Amino acid sequence: MSNIIETRLPTGVKDFLPVKAAKLEFLQSALYQIFHRWGFQPIVPAILEDLAVLELGLGEDLREKTFRFDDRQTGRLVAFPPDITPQVARIAATRMHDMPLPFRLCYSGRVLRHAEQRLGKDREVFQAGVELIGLDSAEADAEMIAMTVEGLRSVGAQEFTVDIGQVDFLRGILDDLDLDNHDIALLCAAIAAKDLSSLKQLLEDLPLSDQKREELLTLPRLFGGPDVLDKAAAAVRNPKSLRALENLQQVLDLLKIYGVEDFITLDLGELRGFDYHTGLIFQGYLSGFGRAVCSGGRYDNLMGRYGFSTPATGFAFNLYNLLFALDRELIQHAAGGTDILLVSMAKDKMPAQRLAVTLRQQGYSVAREMLVRDRQASLDYARRLHFRYLMILPEAMDSLLLIRPGDGQETKVDLNAVEEGRLQL
Amino acid sequence: MSNIIETRLPTGVKDFLPVKAAKLEFLQSALYQIFHRWGFQPIVPAILEDLAVLELGLGEDLREKTFRFDDRQTGRLVAFPPDITPQVARIAATRMHDMPLPFRLCYSGRVLRHAEQRLGKDREVFQAGVELIGLDSAEADAEMIAMTVEGLRSVGAQEFTVDIGQVDFLRGILDDLDLDNHDIALLCAAIAAKDLSSLKQLLEDLPLSDQKREELLTLPRLFGGPDVLDKAAAAVRNPKSLRALENLQQVLDLLKIYGVEDFITLDLGELRGFDYHTGLIFQGYLSGFGRAVCSGGRYDNLMGRYGFSTPATGFAFNLYNLLFALDRELIQHAAGGTDILLVSMAKDKMPAQRLAVTLRQQGYSVAREMLVRDRQASLDYARRLHFRYLMILPEAMDSLLLIRPGDGQETKVDLNAVEEGRLQL
Repeated sequence: MSNIIETRLPTGVKDFLPVKAAKLEFLQSALYQIFHRWGFQPIVPAILEDLAVLELGLGEDLREKTFRFDDRQTGRLVAFPPDITPQVARIAATRMHDMPLPFRLCYSGRVLRHAEQRLGKDREVFQAGVELIGLDSAEADAEMIAMTVEGLRSVGAQEFTVDIGQVDFLRGILDDLDLDNHDIALLCAAIAAKDLSSLKQLLEDLPLSDQKREELLTLPRLFGGPDVLDKAAAAVRNPKSLRALENLQQVLDLLKIYGVEDFITLDLGELRGFDYHTGLIFQGYLSGFGRAVCSGGRYDNLMGRYGFSTPATGFAFNLYNLLFALDRELIQHAAGGTDILLVSMAKDKMPAQRLAVTLRQQGYSVAREMLVRDRQASLDYARRLHFRYLMILPEAMDSLLLIRPGDGQETKVDLNAVEEGRLQL
Repeated sequence: MSNIIETRLPTGVKDFLPVKAAKLEFLQSALYQIFHRWGFQPIVPAILEDLAVLELGLGEDLREKTFRFDDRQTGRLVAFPPDITPQVARIAATRMHDMPLPFRLCYSGRVLRHAEQRLGKDREVFQAGVELIGLDSAEADAEMIAMTVEGLRSVGAQEFTVDIGQVDFLRGILDDLDLDNHDIALLCAAIAAKDLSSLKQLLEDLPLSDQKREELLTLPRLFGGPDVLDKAAAAVRNPKSLRALENLQQVLDLLKIYGVEDFITLDLGELRGFDYHTGLIFQGYLSGFGRAVCSGGRYDNLMGRYGFSTPATGFAFNLYNLLFALDRELIQHAAGGTDILLVSMAKDKMPAQRLAVTLRQQGYSVAREMLVRDRQASLDYARRLHFRYLMILPEAMDSLLLIRPGDGQETKVDLNAVEEGRLQL
């Protein structure tokens, strides 16, 4: 029976058992600590949204992925948010507009998205992120990237890159083209795939100037180190693209002051979130792990959709991706288990109960053995459930025996020493 | 426009803005710290459940309140859990059954329940709770209550009670009655409402022995201090009720060792969760706040519904109720805001950026002022957004000026002292 039930969890969602859940807890709290250090204040958006209100802030892709249903109590269409950023934008625009800008807000939460089940994709995303609302400067963009790097370091990531793009660079090139949407979509697909031969073939059939053709052909090659900016500046002529390059240069200069320039790569053909973002965009990647663990960027038009026009930028970590990418490294942070399993050999439970209270006051995590079983059974239990120590209070209560479940090593400890706070585990 | 959007949040759900969200964060983390101290390990159940699987573990009341919908990708009925306990039971029964018992598991999360909108009830509940699976002893029951008291103290609650009941006491009385379900329901309603006159009237028309009639009439009076147990023992004869009283006496004795007996009241007519619970049940109340902030109890039959029969007990805090009840008291814990808003008067941003990095490394939370505005505007901003200090780095960079936004008090600080870690805010 148990197997039948287990396999009947809906597709695309998962349970996280103690060891992995402890790692998630560590990730969430480590990132929140960074967010707080940088002055970001938490907000908790509602768990449901009116669909029409939510859709004001969703791009086409997320609209299609939104879980929606009829609210039987009001007859309205409601939705489970597929992304938290539009919710933060709604709250900032409608409930905080009488406060002075900028707002530094952070959040963490689980969102739902319809996903291709054939690809085994998750339908749930656990995000922890920030929004910096009210600033359009390169300093604000740089703050997002510096925080991303600091966040990745704080959770133990060693080798990683932050890939930076700028949607205005591409927009500047596409703006002046006299093409229909279908042709633009084909062009964008080839650029996003860095598929130079398809791009060439497409361009042959389109009515474009040589200058434009050259700009477009350069795009798939514009990724790599800071020299990409020079290459790009040599290739384009339009003012929007040139301003985008200037913004990128300013951000790179600021990131040098933060000492994080070595983590940065540039990709000017990056198209992710093209309909949503308005300037600098970025994604964080850990070495050897294909999916982004973090993504963000500028979205200067989103707040306006909720009636309060102001520029904004932000980013979010994907905690499940971080967990899978850093699973091993996180053991040292998050798999401590419980410090002590306390076994009393006396019939009178009072001394053990009091000892547990004392140890907890000293900051140790302590569970009491409440089953009557032999020492080996208690030791097996302690080992399988990741206790650090088995502590035995003998009937005479003259001393304590500490046993390490891993290797069975025993230490005798004076009971007075423990009560006086001199135990060191 | 902004007002129209704001009011279109679905009924029964809320946003939590920074100050309240920080309080929620404090509540969640303070309670988790207690759970960890007692050896409870976190788990994170899936965000969606197969409806049929979830319903195995739901009582009639929660089944009706469950948000359910057709999963367009699989055609199955799926549900958003209205309670986390059945999910923990499913996971423990189907994914941990090869591990030795007991399990100490904790969780926190937001659940959804259809609720009477006319009553303005919340449809979302933010729970933080524990499950202790595999123990049927009074010690396990006592652990739940001692943890509840410790949890309430840790979040700053001063005056509170934990009301304890025992569903087997009432079951023992009802078991031997030769009545149909309709009559039993009427009796239970009168007992739950402590409505002695209705109860009397009902009993007149029912075919009952004098002994049974007397037992039932005593029920609405069986609440108060520990002497309730003696009164109850004098009133009942059936073995099930007597065993329930014995269990309560054992738990009370254990709670004395924990030194928490003064917080306890008894209510043997309590009927909450009657179809779900199997033994001791309890609810926590703060003085002056009518809704329970915490509830829990024994549920020895739930695990069996998922194919793994073992006794269990647990409880959950309702964080929104705790927040509303303790809103003022929580200010000291959770409304610290950000420590420093750092304003640089120099054109070169590097020194201020570096100073911010240094201060953050020292553990301060620091946001940089990125807008160019006069000192008064920065001060207003700092005050309205709850910064503790405005820190001004003058163009000469020879010293720092610290201003308290609340009262405008200024202090000059040596820049070297800050860099050497001698700043104390």
